[in-house]
Amino acid sequence: MKILLKIMYDGSGYCGFQYQPTGRSIQGVLTECVSKAFGLSCLVTGCSRTDAGVHALGYCALVEPQDKSVALTEWCSVPDGKIHRLLNVVLPDDICVIGAARIDADFHPRYNAIGKEYLYKFRDAVYPDPFTVGKAYHVKRPLGEEELAKMNEAAKFIVGRHDFASFMASGSSITDTVREIYSLEVRRASEFDVEMRISGNGFLYNMVRIIAGTLLDVAYGKISPAELPEIIESKDRSLAGATAPAHGLYLSQVFYDREIEFSAN
Amino acid sequence: MKILLKIMYDGSGYCGFQYQPTGRSIQGVLTECVSKAFGLSCLVTGCSRTDAGVHALGYCALVEPQDKSVALTEWCSVPDGKIHRLLNVVLPDDICVIGAARIDADFHPRYNAIGKEYLYKFRDAVYPDPFTVGKAYHVKRPLGEEELAKMNEAAKFIVGRHDFASFMASGSSITDTVREIYSLEVRRASEFDVEMRISGNGFLYNMVRIIAGTLLDVAYGKISPAELPEIIESKDRSLAGATAPAHGLYLSQVFYDREIEFSAN
Repeated sequence: MKILLKIMYDGSGYCGFQYQPTGRSIQGVLTECVSKAFGLSCLVTGCSRTDAGVHALGYCALVEPQDKSVALTEWCSVPDGKIHRLLNVVLPDDICVIGAARIDADFHPRYNAIGKEYLYKFRDAVYPDPFTVGKAYHVKRPLGEEELAKMNEAAKFIVGRHDFASFMASGSSITDTVREIYSLEVRRASEFDVEMRISGNGFLYNMVRIIAGTLLDVAYGKISPAELPEIIESKDRSLAGATAPAHGLYLSQVFYDREIEFSAN
Repeated sequence: MKILLKIMYDGSGYCGFQYQPTGRSIQGVLTECVSKAFGLSCLVTGCSRTDAGVHALGYCALVEPQDKSVALTEWCSVPDGKIHRLLNVVLPDDICVIGAARIDADFHPRYNAIGKEYLYKFRDAVYPDPFTVGKAYHVKRPLGEEELAKMNEAAKFIVGRHDFASFMASGSSITDTVREIYSLEVRRASEFDVEMRISGNGFLYNMVRIIAGTLLDVAYGKISPAELPEIIESKDRSLAGATAPAHGLYLSQVFYDREIEFSAN
């Protein structure tokens, strides 16, 4: 048995999830803190790489002792529901555990995932906001009802199973660029906050950020909603919109091939 | 004529609004940035002192040149609606101007205020949240519907004109402790966020934070709602609840004795 953690993090101060020899990574800090809390060297495996500045609301990370001969009961005697308390004591304020679950030793947080959901946050106030700096993409022009309607019209063409080569960062080495998008919706969340919510079975490199940038071009009239099928069809990255900045992106949910009950009490 | 600015700030990194010889203050940073933007030494006067860590959503600060002989047209040729753009370029990310208005030279942002509104934000998730650390008071136990109902029941006794000596930080030198509270309401703002909103003609030192702490004691059964009249009557600080932490407090609105139209476009 291993432990699967559900975590939130503010990615502002990090070079991304994945450990890098230079730079502060979520994986690096998590590994250090988890090892300290459990009192033995641990390995942490993530469900996804996230870019520098990207945030998470429901990231899943697997924890196991480096020494595989140590039984779970030996290194973690804390009940699942209390693990978040133990770990949050040692974690910095910008990472926190919101739940934990015991899971089979053969489980992999990336390969057993059958889908993910991301949020992309736009902010459309005329002035910047000290409370959302680095937490949303501050766009220059308001996104009125008409703009949101156009974004949602374009979104309909993205939903479904398509070759998303046009929506992958150029230079990526991935060859199978077919993915299925389950849902994609843009809505006003509050006075100056607009949220794009997207779920699918998998995402290419920068795919969510390119979709966000493309829908923004649709909102501002640079691309018409009806052009979307053509852009997808073309498999030409240059026809889609710009890559929206990392700091508006949140990994919000990971869907697994099994029911996992995260406890926190 | 002078310029009245409406500003938002995240008070986390500041020793409060008021200039202090040691420590970074909102007034200090504002004075420096405004002087730089307008290209001459300016004075900045606030509508209220705020404590270290306290935030603002609609603080009002008056700006004028230190040299009173300089005419407004000389030092500020920018139209009101553009002033926020000019200033936000030089201000740090945690302070921003959300509107500006030209105002009579005899106007004082503090003495011409006839009331203020504050928000106090509670967070009642079982786990901490990287996105609200330092921006809300994380309470240990959930505030269910029953708890909120009790808080609002107690709140009714606070609304009105009373001697609020019991709700003033001990050691304050103020002698007239009568204030009028126009409204006080507690409501769930989102899944884990509870907001207390209070408006009144004036507030004693720490009054909002002591009211927040007292209503929390009511929520958790330490004080019953019916005890509030007695606590007010007693003028005894020790009967009210603890002073809730500064980082949950937001100065949200200032009401003036005249109509002021802040522009930002």
